[in-house]
Amino acid sequence: MFIRAQRTGVWRGVRRFYSQKTYSGGNRAVRSGLAFLGTGLAASYATYEYLRKYPPPDVFPKGATTALQDLSRSPVYVSGGDLEVAVGEIGRLLRPDQTSSSDGERSVHSDNSSNFHKPSEHERPDLVVFPESVDEVVAVVKICSKYKIPMIPYSGGTSIEGHFIPTRRGVCIDVSRMSKVVELHEDDLDVVVEPGIGWQELNAYLDPHGLMFGPDPGPGACIGGMVATNCSGTRATRYGTMKDNVIGLKVVLSDGTVIKTKNRPRKSSAGYNLTGLFVGSEGTLGIIVEATLKVAVQPENEVVAMVNFNTLSEAARTVTEIFRRGLPLNAVELMDDRQMRCFSEMGTGDGRKWSDKNLLLFKLGGSKNTMKDQINTVKQICKQNGGFNMEIATKDADKDDIWQARKTQLWTSIDWARRLIPNAQAWPTDVAVPISKLPAVIEQTVHDIESNGLLTTVVGHVGDGNIHALVIFPPEKREVAEKVVHNMVARAIANEGTVSGEHGVGIGKREFLEQELGLDAVNTMRRLKLALDPDLLFNPDKIFKVDPNEAARH
Amino acid sequence: MFIRAQRTGVWRGVRRFYSQKTYSGGNRAVRSGLAFLGTGLAASYATYEYLRKYPPPDVFPKGATTALQDLSRSPVYVSGGDLEVAVGEIGRLLRPDQTSSSDGERSVHSDNSSNFHKPSEHERPDLVVFPESVDEVVAVVKICSKYKIPMIPYSGGTSIEGHFIPTRRGVCIDVSRMSKVVELHEDDLDVVVEPGIGWQELNAYLDPHGLMFGPDPGPGACIGGMVATNCSGTRATRYGTMKDNVIGLKVVLSDGTVIKTKNRPRKSSAGYNLTGLFVGSEGTLGIIVEATLKVAVQPENEVVAMVNFNTLSEAARTVTEIFRRGLPLNAVELMDDRQMRCFSEMGTGDGRKWSDKNLLLFKLGGSKNTMKDQINTVKQICKQNGGFNMEIATKDADKDDIWQARKTQLWTSIDWARRLIPNAQAWPTDVAVPISKLPAVIEQTVHDIESNGLLTTVVGHVGDGNIHALVIFPPEKREVAEKVVHNMVARAIANEGTVSGEHGVGIGKREFLEQELGLDAVNTMRRLKLALDPDLLFNPDKIFKVDPNEAARH
Repeated sequence: MFIRAQRTGVWRGVRRFYSQKTYSGGNRAVRSGLAFLGTGLAASYATYEYLRKYPPPDVFPKGATTALQDLSRSPVYVSGGDLEVAVGEIGRLLRPDQTSSSDGERSVHSDNSSNFHKPSEHERPDLVVFPESVDEVVAVVKICSKYKIPMIPYSGGTSIEGHFIPTRRGVCIDVSRMSKVVELHEDDLDVVVEPGIGWQELNAYLDPHGLMFGPDPGPGACIGGMVATNCSGTRATRYGTMKDNVIGLKVVLSDGTVIKTKNRPRKSSAGYNLTGLFVGSEGTLGIIVEATLKVAVQPENEVVAMVNFNTLSEAARTVTEIFRRGLPLNAVELMDDRQMRCFSEMGTGDGRKWSDKNLLLFKLGGSKNTMKDQINTVKQICKQNGGFNMEIATKDADKDDIWQARKTQLWTSIDWARRLIPNAQAWPTDVAVPISKLPAVIEQTVHDIESNGLLTTVVGHVGDGNIHALVIFPPEKREVAEKVVHNMVARAIANEGTVSGEHGVGIGKREFLEQELGLDAVNTMRRLKLALDPDLLFNPDKIFKVDPNEAARH
Repeated sequence: MFIRAQRTGVWRGVRRFYSQKTYSGGNRAVRSGLAFLGTGLAASYATYEYLRKYPPPDVFPKGATTALQDLSRSPVYVSGGDLEVAVGEIGRLLRPDQTSSSDGERSVHSDNSSNFHKPSEHERPDLVVFPESVDEVVAVVKICSKYKIPMIPYSGGTSIEGHFIPTRRGVCIDVSRMSKVVELHEDDLDVVVEPGIGWQELNAYLDPHGLMFGPDPGPGACIGGMVATNCSGTRATRYGTMKDNVIGLKVVLSDGTVIKTKNRPRKSSAGYNLTGLFVGSEGTLGIIVEATLKVAVQPENEVVAMVNFNTLSEAARTVTEIFRRGLPLNAVELMDDRQMRCFSEMGTGDGRKWSDKNLLLFKLGGSKNTMKDQINTVKQICKQNGGFNMEIATKDADKDDIWQARKTQLWTSIDWARRLIPNAQAWPTDVAVPISKLPAVIEQTVHDIESNGLLTTVVGHVGDGNIHALVIFPPEKREVAEKVVHNMVARAIANEGTVSGEHGVGIGKREFLEQELGLDAVNTMRRLKLALDPDLLFNPDKIFKVDPNEAARH
């Protein structure tokens, strides 16, 4: 308070003091007194401004959290000719084909088609760079840090929460050319990779070794972004999410410092879990330039089992009971009856006949005898809970066909929707709840969507309680769609759930994050951000607000 | 620099200016000039000191890391009568039996018998408190925060790296009376507990439900400390370490703010992974007051298999090959031939005959057929790699007998050592390396210990590459023991390993942590600490130094 009062009043006081009127009036003692006061205030103000600009390295704000209203001003970024100077410096550092400011590249690096959080016309990066080594990333970061230019890390560009919208313009650092496998350690079951490699390319590399990488998010995702969003996919129930599969990271911090978060053992209690902090940090704390990942052994034998249920409760109950028996499922996916009707009507799969009822899809694996036991147990539990149409696919062609239907359900659903509603749009969602709450949450969500006159299909990584309802709507009903999506998130929170199972917060779910965890937890995150990136250069405005003057955005 | 020069020079300048000598000499213009200068400097200095004491909430130091030398002074804690005032306030807050400043309690809360990092005579807490609720923890933290009193969280007190040495005295917050199971969610396979519950008590609670908690560290450990050190145990290869088993935490921050890090779903990408940051933070970032933990289903059937090997390489190779076949072992432990000789000579177990050779100890579980397959595969791989004396224990009595030998190996080894060296001391160690490096690291370590005239036994959580060599020595050879322990840590680092597999850094391994991860990573940790705990109140001096003037300690 002292400081704020000083800042606003000080220049006015100084100017008035030195103005002719004051100076000529009064007696000498008063004039002297005022002169000293003015000098003192001016010196004090100068010191204050100096310390704001060059804070002592050991003085941190009191308390443990930083609320948005604690920030006294909007972030200040590069202005005037400095941007051009910086772009020139980057240009001299990299080859011409490693930078671009073409409209096309700038558009691609602001938005994608599955994203419902759209950049405004001006939210384009000033420059896109394609570094090919850690050293190049560091050099670019140092230039951006010197001139206070926002930086947005980018790899596969498949995220759905507006993660790479360049809200403050700046430089998009696209690491997709850093896509090598650095080292595979077969005996230790780990692999060191660059961030630009896709998970599918990584699996292609691992396949001849009989190995695989656990997480399997949407096609096109790359390791850098997968680390940044803590993504997962259909296999998380067995192999875990990204945070469970990253052993260590090499990260470039906001001032260009490079750190290694952990050494290579699968287990370590060596200091803070920096790995865990950067996994899921959505590009706001540092740029991932290398990752050491766990790899898994491909299942010896694997079958896909399908079974229908009349109700979601029966399906969820089945999954719970299977887990309670300690069976290690390789995957378990739920598709609701709407999704199944869509498959049926679209003729999805190679001539396959789908029932219109809720479907559970299992992957079971292990030795021959293990599988036999597992299949028997799963069959028995399904039957007890009202499952029917049980089918076990053992041939590769069948298994691929079925799983492919699940992996491409988003696009099938959109095509299906457009038969019913020309120009239909489809909003993907992503919440997770404790599995016991799953049936009610799905049923209420479907009811809400349909009673608002929209369409939906629902799939879920049911083993993790993670649901994706696709909200399908004609363009003119965008607001209604937004409302039911928000209702769904609120419903998840009311059921002890999370606003994001695997896609992250980005710009789309910042308010929901506050509702889920409370302001104090978000204020703790904001403080960590300010500690590691005091000039707010890395992917600003994501996960939580950093500008007290930011207008609401949709 | 500007600031430092100012600080040192300013008062001298002001005093000289106002001294009679300066004031009476010189002409009036010079005097005025000097008066203005003095006023300016004084105002500037006052502002600087004010800002140090009350830094603006949004001004963080530049850069991304805080080196020890960035800290300009030692932490400043409570002094004079304030401590007494604070103790009085705490006394009025809690019942008399909830605080203690007896010599006994203060000793117990400074040290334990397995710790080789001893507190000095003065390193005793000023007060030990036993809160019984989150509100009481918050109230104590707020008082300590107001008076700048160091706080050391404490639960089971079983750590071995000097984690709870009260290096700056202060208040030890013992949460052992907060030991309730808050909620068990059987269908969701999670449990909410208070931090003072022991993992053994938790398992006793879960047992009638057919459930168990994965991590199994040393007897006596409690959840609070287990979270704080990211511990694990023999089952980590199957069930993971603490960081894999904690879903969410409730934490009290340095100013008394309470945050919840995650909601209850097993999977979430909602913002920074605060859970992961607090797991392994060793009481330096906050006090864990509640934890939501994953629980596992007890294995349907479980056998213990034992097999001997002539060399460590054969044993390690066996484990690698078993993993490469994708077999999910419930546990796999290694005991070297010295450890086996110890068992044999001490008559460990109920009349059991032990071979003197390196032993692998497996836990295999699953359905009957699964186990049959697993046993056959394990047998075959062991045989191919030179294993002999294969024995499968299926009866509970046998299984317990064998596993009990492993779990109490520390005490057996000490008893054994004291037969050979009266008054022998035993230093437990804890490093982890990639499993492919394990045999060489063990062999070199044993050679180093023995060629220095000391004794050792080695056990390892071999599935995680985690080794505990017990260094046994007569009291007069403490320095030699310390040297070989340090050599072992250095050897782990040289083999891409970690200085702590599961016990943490505490005060004992701070320098090694710097060697493992580099100064920049440690400086990143220090900055996170300063961000969340700017007055360095929570368990100071642990994991990394926070006092640039700290003398070396052993």
